Amino acid sequence: MHTIVKIKFKIKSMYRNHTCGELNLAAVNKEVTLAGWVQKVRKLGGGMNFVDLRDRYGITQLVFSKEADADLYEQSNKLGREYVLQVTGLVRERESKNANNPTGDIEIIVNKLVILNTSETPPFTIEDDTDGGDDLRMKYRYLDLRRNAVRRNLELRNRLTFETRRYLNERSFLEVETPVLVASTPEGARDFVVPSRMNPGEFYALPQSPQLFKQLLMVSGFDRYFQIVKCFRDEDLRADRQPEFTQIDCEMSFVRQEDILNMFEGLVKTLFKTEKNIDLPDFPRMPYSEAMKYYGSDKPDTRFDMKFVELKDLTTGKDFAVFDSAEYVGAICAKGAATYTRKQLDALTDFVKRPQIGAKGLVYVRYEADGTLKSSVDKFYDQNDLKKWSERCQASPGDLILILCGETEKAQKQLCELRLEVGEQLGLRDKNKFSCLWVVDFPLLEKDEELGRYFAKHHPFTSPKEEDIPLLDSDPGAVRANAYDMVINGVEVGGGSLRIYNSQLQKKMFMTLGFTEERAQEQFGFLMNAFKYGAPPHAGIAFGLDRLVSIFAGLDSIRDCIAFPKNNSGRDVMVDAPSKLDAVQLDELHLKIDETK
Amino acid sequence: MHTIVKIKFKIKSMYRNHTCGELNLAAVNKEVTLAGWVQKVRKLGGGMNFVDLRDRYGITQLVFSKEADADLYEQSNKLGREYVLQVTGLVRERESKNANNPTGDIEIIVNKLVILNTSETPPFTIEDDTDGGDDLRMKYRYLDLRRNAVRRNLELRNRLTFETRRYLNERSFLEVETPVLVASTPEGARDFVVPSRMNPGEFYALPQSPQLFKQLLMVSGFDRYFQIVKCFRDEDLRADRQPEFTQIDCEMSFVRQEDILNMFEGLVKTLFKTEKNIDLPDFPRMPYSEAMKYYGSDKPDTRFDMKFVELKDLTTGKDFAVFDSAEYVGAICAKGAATYTRKQLDALTDFVKRPQIGAKGLVYVRYEADGTLKSSVDKFYDQNDLKKWSERCQASPGDLILILCGETEKAQKQLCELRLEVGEQLGLRDKNKFSCLWVVDFPLLEKDEELGRYFAKHHPFTSPKEEDIPLLDSDPGAVRANAYDMVINGVEVGGGSLRIYNSQLQKKMFMTLGFTEERAQEQFGFLMNAFKYGAPPHAGIAFGLDRLVSIFAGLDSIRDCIAFPKNNSGRDVMVDAPSKLDAVQLDELHLKIDETK
Repeated sequence: MHTIVKIKFKIKSMYRNHTCGELNLAAVNKEVTLAGWVQKVRKLGGGMNFVDLRDRYGITQLVFSKEADADLYEQSNKLGREYVLQVTGLVRERESKNANNPTGDIEIIVNKLVILNTSETPPFTIEDDTDGGDDLRMKYRYLDLRRNAVRRNLELRNRLTFETRRYLNERSFLEVETPVLVASTPEGARDFVVPSRMNPGEFYALPQSPQLFKQLLMVSGFDRYFQIVKCFRDEDLRADRQPEFTQIDCEMSFVRQEDILNMFEGLVKTLFKTEKNIDLPDFPRMPYSEAMKYYGSDKPDTRFDMKFVELKDLTTGKDFAVFDSAEYVGAICAKGAATYTRKQLDALTDFVKRPQIGAKGLVYVRYEADGTLKSSVDKFYDQNDLKKWSERCQASPGDLILILCGETEKAQKQLCELRLEVGEQLGLRDKNKFSCLWVVDFPLLEKDEELGRYFAKHHPFTSPKEEDIPLLDSDPGAVRANAYDMVINGVEVGGGSLRIYNSQLQKKMFMTLGFTEERAQEQFGFLMNAFKYGAPPHAGIAFGLDRLVSIFAGLDSIRDCIAFPKNNSGRDVMVDAPSKLDAVQLDELHLKIDETK
Repeated sequence: MHTIVKIKFKIKSMYRNHTCGELNLAAVNKEVTLAGWVQKVRKLGGGMNFVDLRDRYGITQLVFSKEADADLYEQSNKLGREYVLQVTGLVRERESKNANNPTGDIEIIVNKLVILNTSETPPFTIEDDTDGGDDLRMKYRYLDLRRNAVRRNLELRNRLTFETRRYLNERSFLEVETPVLVASTPEGARDFVVPSRMNPGEFYALPQSPQLFKQLLMVSGFDRYFQIVKCFRDEDLRADRQPEFTQIDCEMSFVRQEDILNMFEGLVKTLFKTEKNIDLPDFPRMPYSEAMKYYGSDKPDTRFDMKFVELKDLTTGKDFAVFDSAEYVGAICAKGAATYTRKQLDALTDFVKRPQIGAKGLVYVRYEADGTLKSSVDKFYDQNDLKKWSERCQASPGDLILILCGETEKAQKQLCELRLEVGEQLGLRDKNKFSCLWVVDFPLLEKDEELGRYFAKHHPFTSPKEEDIPLLDSDPGAVRANAYDMVINGVEVGGGSLRIYNSQLQKKMFMTLGFTEERAQEQFGFLMNAFKYGAPPHAGIAFGLDRLVSIFAGLDSIRDCIAFPKNNSGRDVMVDAPSKLDAVQLDELHLKIDETK
């Protein structure tokens, strides 16, 4: 692996002059002192014990021989797993070398042993493939973190953040710390709040993002800002959500959309180059409408093609009521999947009919190797019809066409899930392949049909496309935003927008969102005020660091990119947080627990 | 100034192709586009307007001439301070150059003007010396941050943190994010707490430091950890305290004290070298006892000498009851201060008698230029006596000896204040001079006389000196700790300790501090548990970033090193935080405000 951060200095201290990861044949016959943990003790019998000594940097083999030193040998008999040792000894070339270990050519003939600490038997094995379940690993996270597999993710995270800072610093971005104790804004997700002892009855909030502060920094003329920063959201948790998460938060002044896309495309390309030595091609810009039309998702996984093909016009008028009555009939073509068995097709049908997806059924057309077409709707459509479908799908003999239908938006979402599932089954979602793009031109607003009002799709500071501003009054739902998401392998890793920088337009936006003037003033007055004193055109983006790292690490969950994550109930089971407070603490905060709820 | 971060890339966007800080004679006759704020409009009459256009990078002079373009000239007449402009024009050599401005050789003959935003008149002037008071500056912090004087501090902060990260990364330190939502520990300062909606009646706490987590990372074998991290303390605020503050938090395994002192002395030397091109000499290690004896402080300002001299033995038995009855008589010698007038000496006496300092009086001895000695206690002491005093003080003709007496510890503290005041008056506390040292061998415990029990001076995880461990039972107050502070110019910028890594010793420490076994288990059980699985010897340090930056910036307060500071009541007056919550929010948190208090 390509190393980003150059380690320039040897690890050396009064406890050791080498690490367990660096000795090789060049050191033979040198006396060295190492310190680390016992990974394994192998008692060979015949008066020889081998001990694998582990530290962050590697594993080195120690040799205790009865013949050489009976006392030491006796002591080594008592060593257990995870004991902490300091050893001094002579480096010797190994008889049977281990090519898989960088230190596998040598071993240490120990002549001095200090047991720095003993260890009880750990509740699970400290190996890449551990026998510990999730709950046990979380309770003993400090032992789980000893496993290479977990530690490497955090080393990766450190390299990615360091390189991000270098990239941005070299381009005149200033990292500015914004406050963690801020004001609560009831819009958006729920805030975590912090009672103020000095201001009884009042609360700070923890920031969901530094959005307002970074915009104020632009008003201040900071020009280019970034921050790698903890953010907080009090949401019901899912596997991939944490109550605290980290963003790479950025903002720039005097830029248009292409400026900011290029700047941050450059960042991600640099990370891939330095970390994985991959030269990514330029990222396509895909309008939101196109993403929905061809992938049924605003974060399409473009590692594989299999775009949606609309068949409505070709399927109508053949007495197949299901298609005839559907607003939308869409297909995907799975290359080479005509070999799918009846059982596999039934499984796919079950898959799309699961309540989480909610399709009524699945239609398939098999393009047999002999050129004939077989479908589950042969009753209604002849070879000629199917031929037309397959031509539009650009299908070849050996391919499988899968068709869903229904209300457009719903059917597209279902087809999206089907496409991802089939892509997965066909091995098209390779974790070592990376496909990046920008999705642009998002709608500005989203209608909550129940409440009958519009919400900002991104946030209320996102600017509408200039040519769409007149629609704000006549057809708000049609207004497109200057908003963009970066998508990698079907995951939204970052998103942002050009901001409104005119206080009149900002006011209009708040009104469109149903704010009264008083409420807008109360919550965002300082921002609208700030805009009165010369706000520059500005734009920004925020990346979810946890997700970005998990993509680089090839992990499905963000949890193992985080040193001390919370579980799905928002608990840290290791330190047992949250917990009850002393009555004194509650008193000082002028709070009472409401037991009636 | 020596620049740490190399800016490798030109600032260029679709709004501008140059900044306001970079054009010079080499650009003459080029057409350029700039964007920025109107710093000043000078109407010369005769159809010429000069406009100073400002951005983060500098100021460039724009010229609007009626002769060249009457329309543009007319528009320029309407420009006001802090308007945001985009201008295109031709670079021309100035007739009267301004050598104080990097762009002072040129000006721009504007041929295109876009007013990107207008501005109301700011509530104070955007100048280095502003007419805005503190309250106004804080309310309009976004305008205050436009001032070079404030922005430069934040640029400095960015450079220092970047260089800190580089230094530590090159030495294999891993930056690991520890959680912000942690468990409350009633020891130490007050915690800010965060009610958990998902766990009704329970609270997270915000960390006062990542102490426990970084020690767990050492148990995990992370070997070298750091983090630049926000910490929180709910204390009554002083001028130099903020409820949220930033630490450079570090921990290392397999090190002894000199390892860690050298590592972080190296960091601070590197920062001084890269930022100020100063080569600092090695930092002296001064035992706590010596610091108290010679400076009356555990954070002596060693930019100047003026060490304490004990005179008790020389002053006794001459019928001066004040000295005779005092446990301690101590002097400082102010070089060249014999010229102090009676009025100045009275002022110094008033200074030490202020209630914050609390001395009963001040005795002085003037070593006149002619060699005679004059004192305020001539009644009791003859020339011969005074001669002996002055010899011990190594005083010369022209010097002034100042003497305080009383109970040792109190008198030393008072003498410390006097020394700092006199040093200030004599110009010995130069902000451009830097004197760094380590204070070591702190006492492990501090007795709270009122409660009659011992508290950890540093924190309960600090290890006692091995040779002092037997004293833990017999004379706890005499036990010295493996603890150290870094002091620069009389300010404690960082501190740390070698940690206890043995669960038995840790348990004993908790008992000494009056914890019951249950309480220790409840609060720190996971740490003591962790120690059972092989904890390595480890040690750490934390620097107060805000203070460190303020020393580099030559500021007295940390406030202007922070983008959005809180005031002395812990309020952010700009966003108006803290504030009241909606009843719905309180309900969801199962909380009630206790109005009875």
